[in-house]
Amino acid sequence: MVDLDPVDPYRLRPIGIVRSNLKRREDCSHQGWEGAPDAWLEIDPAVAEGLDGITPGCELVLLTWLHEAQRNVLKVHPRGNPENPLRGVFATRSPDRPNPVGLHRVKIIEVEKRGRVRVRPLEVLDGTPVIDIKPVLPNSVDM
Amino acid sequence: MVDLDPVDPYRLRPIGIVRSNLKRREDCSHQGWEGAPDAWLEIDPAVAEGLDGITPGCELVLLTWLHEAQRNVLKVHPRGNPENPLRGVFATRSPDRPNPVGLHRVKIIEVEKRGRVRVRPLEVLDGTPVIDIKPVLPNSVDM
Repeated sequence: MVDLDPVDPYRLRPIGIVRSNLKRREDCSHQGWEGAPDAWLEIDPAVAEGLDGITPGCELVLLTWLHEAQRNVLKVHPRGNPENPLRGVFATRSPDRPNPVGLHRVKIIEVEKRGRVRVRPLEVLDGTPVIDIKPVLPNSVDM
Repeated sequence: MVDLDPVDPYRLRPIGIVRSNLKRREDCSHQGWEGAPDAWLEIDPAVAEGLDGITPGCELVLLTWLHEAQRNVLKVHPRGNPENPLRGVFATRSPDRPNPVGLHRVKIIEVEKRGRVRVRPLEVLDGTPVIDIKPVLPNSVDM
């Protein structure tokens, strides 16, 4: 059983952490397909049995918590370019937004024991918390 | 500026709520394309300017917080069918998981002033909190 704080149902419990060569926000591409590297997911041993069924070659939707984002931003210049007119954050993929969930489609390259999973590509910083992992559904119209 | 609790950076702040005819969990289809209805998103006026740029016809990725889910479940029978062998929750789309984020691809049908947005299809319960909205990117390999 996972130990969860019963008093705050809106609190995220990170299930793991990203280990990546990306150490500074300015090194990260805007999207994974824009040259992002491989990364390792180190999943908390307390929840690692939730990985059962994940195998190399599968595609996943990975959800991260972009912990360096600003949560009080509601409009941005898309892609950080001041020439782009201001736009509501919900119409952009800006990391700055009220709940900075990062959404990444990745391929599984390797699965090690003890909850280490190598994925590609991933455009987030080393140390970014992982909050969920979901399969891409074969007949999905959504992912 | 959005008022956020500065002491807990892992706390979600719902940005709105789903209004739907789905009132009981057993009425919800497993996935949106399995016969789910339209729903209204009622976005908190405090963050509604973040919707600027969202228009009917667009496709969105909607993130919800499946507040009735069990967060201490790590293995499930996929699709709730006991004949399916137990599988790690991260290899399934089960709502029961440590961080029960719902991921839904929807089409925008209508946008009203004051942050009401009608979307289709959406397989979550009336009253489900909305935590994020993102555009589907035109050249996206991920969504």
